[in-house]
Amino acid sequence: MEGHDKAYLKAALAEAKKGLQTGGIPIGSVLVHQGDIIGRGHNKRVQQQSVTLHGEMDALENAGRQPATVYRHSVLYTTLSPCPMCTGAILLYGIPKVVIGENTNFMGAEEHLRANGVEVVVVNDAECIRMMQDFIKSEPHLWHEDIGEEN
Amino acid sequence: MEGHDKAYLKAALAEAKKGLQTGGIPIGSVLVHQGDIIGRGHNKRVQQQSVTLHGEMDALENAGRQPATVYRHSVLYTTLSPCPMCTGAILLYGIPKVVIGENTNFMGAEEHLRANGVEVVVVNDAECIRMMQDFIKSEPHLWHEDIGEEN
Repeated sequence: MEGHDKAYLKAALAEAKKGLQTGGIPIGSVLVHQGDIIGRGHNKRVQQQSVTLHGEMDALENAGRQPATVYRHSVLYTTLSPCPMCTGAILLYGIPKVVIGENTNFMGAEEHLRANGVEVVVVNDAECIRMMQDFIKSEPHLWHEDIGEEN
Repeated sequence: MEGHDKAYLKAALAEAKKGLQTGGIPIGSVLVHQGDIIGRGHNKRVQQQSVTLHGEMDALENAGRQPATVYRHSVLYTTLSPCPMCTGAILLYGIPKVVIGENTNFMGAEEHLRANGVEVVVVNDAECIRMMQDFIKSEPHLWHEDIGEEN
C-alpha cells in the first residue's frame, strides 16, 4: 500500500468510527477522484433504517450525480470487504480500483470484482480488523439481522 | 407468466409511471412477500439526486429493515432488466426470484443472477418496452449520464 492510500483508508476509518459513535455498524468508505475525496459515507442501517446505504453506497450517494468519466478515474476506499450489492455498484459505475481495509471478519465479492477487471488491494489493517471484530462480538444480532442464517 | 405475476408487474409499471410524472427516469419495482407488496419504489436519480436509488433499490429501501427469512421468500418485480448494482442487492439479500418487465432497451446482469441460482423470468411486456424506448429517445443525455460513454 502506498502512502496516499494509507491516508485515504484513514479517512474511511474515520467514517466507520462516526458510524459507531452514532449507534451504527462501523463500516466507512470514501470515494477519491484524482486525489480529492468527493464522497464520504458510513453504514446507515441503524441511523436511517436504510437497507441500501452501506458505507460504500453512502459514499457514492454523498458524491452526488457524477458523469461516467469521474467514476472511471476514481478509487474507492472502504474499511471492510464489499458485499455483493456494493460490488455491483462498483461495477455499475466502472470504478477501476478498490482499497479494502480488511477481509478477515467478512469476505465480500472480491473475486467478482477481480474477474471484472477491478484492481483490488486488501490491506488487512489491524485497526479495521479489531474494530469490526469488537462490533460483531458486542452486537451479533444486528450483524446477522439481514443476511445471516434465517431468523 | 402467471396471472398474479402480471398484477405485480403492473404495480411495478405504476411506480415507473409515477417516476415519469415526477420528472424522473421511468423504472419501477415492487417487492412481494408471500403475496403482499411490502415495498414499492422507482428510480430517484432526478427527484432526489440519488445515484443509488434505482427502482429496485428504492423498493428494497421502502420495504424497510427485514429479517433474512423475509427476503428469502420474496419475489422482486421490476420494469427493466436489473443493473449490476441492483443485481448485487438481490444476491446480497438472497431474493430467489426476479420478474423482469423487459430487457430489450437495457440488458442487465441477468446471467449473473442465473449463475447464482436466482430464478429469472423475462416478460418483455409491450408497455414496458415502449415506455423505456420513448424515454431514452426523449432524454438521451439523462439516460447516458452516469454509465454511458465517457462524457
